[in-house]
Amino acid sequence: MKNIGVVTSGGDAPGMNAAIRAVVRVAYSKNFQVLGFEKGWEGLLKNTFRRLTPRSVGGIIQLGGTILLTSRCPQFRKREGIRKAAETLALNNVDGLIVIGGNGSFKGALELSKETNTSIVGVPATIDNDVFGADETIGFDTAVNTAVNEIDKIRDTAISHERIFIVEVMGRKRGFLASTVGLTVGAEIILVPEVKCEKEKIFKTLKENSAKGKKSGVIVAAEGIGDTRKLAREIQENTGAEVKLSILGYSQRGGNPTARSRLLASLFANKAVELLSKGRGNRIVGLQEGEITSTELERSCKTKKPLDLNLLRLANILAT
Amino acid sequence: MKNIGVVTSGGDAPGMNAAIRAVVRVAYSKNFQVLGFEKGWEGLLKNTFRRLTPRSVGGIIQLGGTILLTSRCPQFRKREGIRKAAETLALNNVDGLIVIGGNGSFKGALELSKETNTSIVGVPATIDNDVFGADETIGFDTAVNTAVNEIDKIRDTAISHERIFIVEVMGRKRGFLASTVGLTVGAEIILVPEVKCEKEKIFKTLKENSAKGKKSGVIVAAEGIGDTRKLAREIQENTGAEVKLSILGYSQRGGNPTARSRLLASLFANKAVELLSKGRGNRIVGLQEGEITSTELERSCKTKKPLDLNLLRLANILAT
Amino acid sequence: MKNIGVVTSGGDAPGMNAAIRAVVRVAYSKNFQVLGFEKGWEGLLKNTFRRLTPRSVGGIIQLGGTILLTSRCPQFRKREGIRKAAETLALNNVDGLIVIGGNGSFKGALELSKETNTSIVGVPATIDNDVFGADETIGFDTAVNTAVNEIDKIRDTAISHERIFIVEVMGRKRGFLASTVGLTVGAEIILVPEVKCEKEKIFKTLKENSAKGKKSGVIVAAEGIGDTRKLAREIQENTGAEVKLSILGYSQRGGNPTARSRLLASLFANKAVELLSKGRGNRIVGLQEGEITSTELERSCKTKKPLDLNLLRLANILAT
Amino acid sequence: MKNIGVVTSGGDAPGMNAAIRAVVRVAYSKNFQVLGFEKGWEGLLKNTFRRLTPRSVGGIIQLGGTILLTSRCPQFRKREGIRKAAETLALNNVDGLIVIGGNGSFKGALELSKETNTSIVGVPATIDNDVFGADETIGFDTAVNTAVNEIDKIRDTAISHERIFIVEVMGRKRGFLASTVGLTVGAEIILVPEVKCEKEKIFKTLKENSAKGKKSGVIVAAEGIGDTRKLAREIQENTGAEVKLSILGYSQRGGNPTARSRLLASLFANKAVELLSKGRGNRIVGLQEGEITSTELERSCKTKKPLDLNLLRLANILAT
Repeated sequence: MKNIGVVTSGGDAPGMNAAIRAVVRVAYSKNFQVLGFEKGWEGLLKNTFRRLTPRSVGGIIQLGGTILLTSRCPQFRKREGIRKAAETLALNNVDGLIVIGGNGSFKGALELSKETNTSIVGVPATIDNDVFGADETIGFDTAVNTAVNEIDKIRDTAISHERIFIVEVMGRKRGFLASTVGLTVGAEIILVPEVKCEKEKIFKTLKENSAKGKKSGVIVAAEGIGDTRKLAREIQENTGAEVKLSILGYSQRGGNPTARSRLLASLFANKAVELLSKGRGNRIVGLQEGEITSTELERSCKTKKPLDLNLLRLANILAT
Repeated sequence: MKNIGVVTSGGDAPGMNAAIRAVVRVAYSKNFQVLGFEKGWEGLLKNTFRRLTPRSVGGIIQLGGTILLTSRCPQFRKREGIRKAAETLALNNVDGLIVIGGNGSFKGALELSKETNTSIVGVPATIDNDVFGADETIGFDTAVNTAVNEIDKIRDTAISHERIFIVEVMGRKRGFLASTVGLTVGAEIILVPEVKCEKEKIFKTLKENSAKGKKSGVIVAAEGIGDTRKLAREIQENTGAEVKLSILGYSQRGGNPTARSRLLASLFANKAVELLSKGRGNRIVGLQEGEITSTELERSCKTKKPLDLNLLRLANILAT
Repeated sequence: MKNIGVVTSGGDAPGMNAAIRAVVRVAYSKNFQVLGFEKGWEGLLKNTFRRLTPRSVGGIIQLGGTILLTSRCPQFRKREGIRKAAETLALNNVDGLIVIGGNGSFKGALELSKETNTSIVGVPATIDNDVFGADETIGFDTAVNTAVNEIDKIRDTAISHERIFIVEVMGRKRGFLASTVGLTVGAEIILVPEVKCEKEKIFKTLKENSAKGKKSGVIVAAEGIGDTRKLAREIQENTGAEVKLSILGYSQRGGNPTARSRLLASLFANKAVELLSKGRGNRIVGLQEGEITSTELERSCKTKKPLDLNLLRLANILAT
Repeated sequence: MKNIGVVTSGGDAPGMNAAIRAVVRVAYSKNFQVLGFEKGWEGLLKNTFRRLTPRSVGGIIQLGGTILLTSRCPQFRKREGIRKAAETLALNNVDGLIVIGGNGSFKGALELSKETNTSIVGVPATIDNDVFGADETIGFDTAVNTAVNEIDKIRDTAISHERIFIVEVMGRKRGFLASTVGLTVGAEIILVPEVKCEKEKIFKTLKENSAKGKKSGVIVAAEGIGDTRKLAREIQENTGAEVKLSILGYSQRGGNPTARSRLLASLFANKAVELLSKGRGNRIVGLQEGEITSTELERSCKTKKPLDLNLLRLANILAT
């Protein structure tokens, strides 16, 4: 192993920079060189990269976003794009490639791995927390705290006006973000795509709450559940309560990473370089049972990470 | 002066609790009693209040929302409602009433003042900052900082993805919040209702920025400018850039007040009680030329506070 | 099981209120009553408590400190105090007692368990993170982030002035807080009581950093390592660099708990009530290998939790 | 006017970067070139600078510290140093120099102005807020909020443990920071160098508070009042209360500037460039009576800015 490539791909997540920093510095401690490909897969298609050194990644551990930039790259979904990327890796003698991103990026990495001899290791970084093999992904803790801080503020208004608020959080098709956020803000109701949304039950719960003196309430809804605007209207009509909708936006994807996101980034990156240094590739690193581990790339891509339904049950009890 | 009433009305604003605390404690230092009417004007219509003492307002200076609750009260817009409120004031021997709220609340207060002998003083508290006679209102600084912090995070993603973001902030029909937020996040473009939105100019600016290497950008738009969703689409079509929309929600109205919002709340409340203790009513307190002053209630209600266009001109230069 | 007592003891930690809330609400879902003893062990000595209901613990999940108050109670260290507490438990028919606190509190709980039939379960809540049986304690994540945010700010000044900063963090005799904080702020050097402090090595590292262009630096030191004031002086004398000391204070122990501290508090409390409902006592709950588990109270008290030295090694590589 | 120099000097303050950015961009809008001297006066002594362009100051409005670095420079206090600086200005044809800093820096600027034809304008940036001619300085609002946020957290522990906390804040020999922080955290007692510290009165107040049920308390003390450690001991001895001391450190000087600090920085910088463009020098810019104004440099240096004692009186009433 002499040359390591690193790329951030897909949606950005807080802690990606901490991961880049750790990849570079651990690599240098093992005497590897590091090439940072720019703008996600596009950098591999166009052979645009910069040499990264321990000094060039100084002062970035606390920054959101990614200094390597990122993109979604449609060409990469085609065979021709994949081959072009494989050529770039060969051209630059890249022995190992570290892909920092989420599920979509890892699917791309899996395809690429079939066309190249370069070992590929995935580092899970996504606020959606939906990567199989990683109990927690880089950026998830930051996004949770950003949403929690915003909802803590919204609750001030909910209580002062005795209103119901539906707060829509990100998470794409999954409910990881919504369920952790919902439990930790003490949401009255949590709605995730993994559980059927029973509207009659929602109306009933809110009416019961009102009867027992809980005039305000917060419903945390995953973006994946569908039309929250319509839901707000239906609740208002059926309960008589004033219902407001707040869609938390892209601030969930940015901001200084929390300590935990920085820590995971550092531990994941270290593990990724270690795997490459031992000649192991086509894996993703992750956190499992409290340990830093790794999982076959293909298995991660093809397995759906289960949502912990016990968390939702507990949240329900705690929202009494 | 023996009895002072206090009420929070209209939309909540961070620092209302700091104002309530200061009203009560300054009043007690002058040996006045304080009645806190609940849920805005509704408390005056229904004669629901609680006695507030220096101890009962302990530990609230840092809390968002309002412990007295608030509401928008349609009945109060009718003569009958106003008379009912006047009766409540007479019934409880309320010598002076302090109304903590924004323009809408002050218009109600003006109507009420015509039906009652109770002196009324308004304390401007609204994140919209649109009260004539107050260069700054309680809650404005907090809302500005909340928006700025969220947009700082959004910029991480804007830069990493080389995207344009339109961020819609609150402010109702006025551009105070948008212009201060826009300048302090370094927005490329600021859109306010007070200035005609010239779309061709927006397209041109963004294309020029792109040409000189500024691939990402943030447009801060006041909610009062109209349909931002449509605007996002039009910009995307005309510039070819990827454009995302983020609507900052109710978190702008909540949260722990900043030091400045707490300070203004304390100074305003102090002035309001002082006015009442001197038998002066039908005024609002405010900040003018760096001093705590007061203005006739009617004049405040009937005069439109001008937006500082120089701020927008400077923001434009600084966004070079 | 009919009556559960709950008490917070020792130093406060962010998330204690979230734990109290969860204890009460989970208990009620099982039809148990809850008595909240006040001011730590003192409440058990003096039989001062309040009945806690699901409504009385509303709106506290996000608050720092503890609504039950806490104290360090010297009388409780004596046999007589312990017996008095046992009598209080018998008098009120307390079937199970949940002790929310750290090592010191659990040692008291162990002594108490020998004098009472009431089942006792410990819920680890301390920013020191030094409880055996709990990979992470309630409040630790919040304290880490508070320290990290402050040090991120200090680094601005360190860089602008090209200075060395020693930042002393809490943690009593252990280095858990310092090592996690140190790694996640990218500290140049981390000093913990578990590793001998070799001053010559520190001087050497700082001189080498300076030679390679790193003019500023942050040293994170656990309070347990001894006199940091003296250390600052010695570094200044030996390296010629300007060295400043900043001792992070009690803000590390307060503040709104992070999402993770709230989550752990909820999960730990739930487990504690479950254990009691099954008649199991004299245990502490905890997080081990990513799972919510429990450990014998005596074993937890008598075993020293090991510090992860690999974390320090990695931090050292990353600080290159 | 063709060439403008800019330098940051003395202690750093949040918003210095926002000021540098505004200087450069306003200057360019008037077709001036900008030279950024590095490390404070040292850059003028050693003729080390970089050319600053609108692009080179992008992305810094939200950063703490100063990209130009700063220092305290003892040589500059001597005539020889001053002459060297004047030569550097002449050598580079610097027509106008903008000095971003506090009182100390302005005294240096005053000396320099006697030896050079270059027009000099001071931009007040210091968390101490002690510059005559500026009702508020860049960085002050940020430092206040940083301290307020930390003390809000400390109060959690104060209440939970029923303790008295003395919190020492910065401000050098003046009480501006302490008085604003003290009022806005609702401190029971505020101690500033401008008002004699009467210990007997402190003891009496705390005992009275305890008698009326206020078991905890926060004393905000300016660093300029002297030995707070001794004070803590004396209070403990005289009142019997448990007293803890927390010295807020350098985090008060760093961190992302608040919106207000960024706004002041932008307005001040704009005014400074305007003054220079009109050939006016030897002035400092400032905020007076709510307006951006300017004051003679010499007058600012030689006049002590008065502390608003009314604020302390109000704080005292509000702490009832």
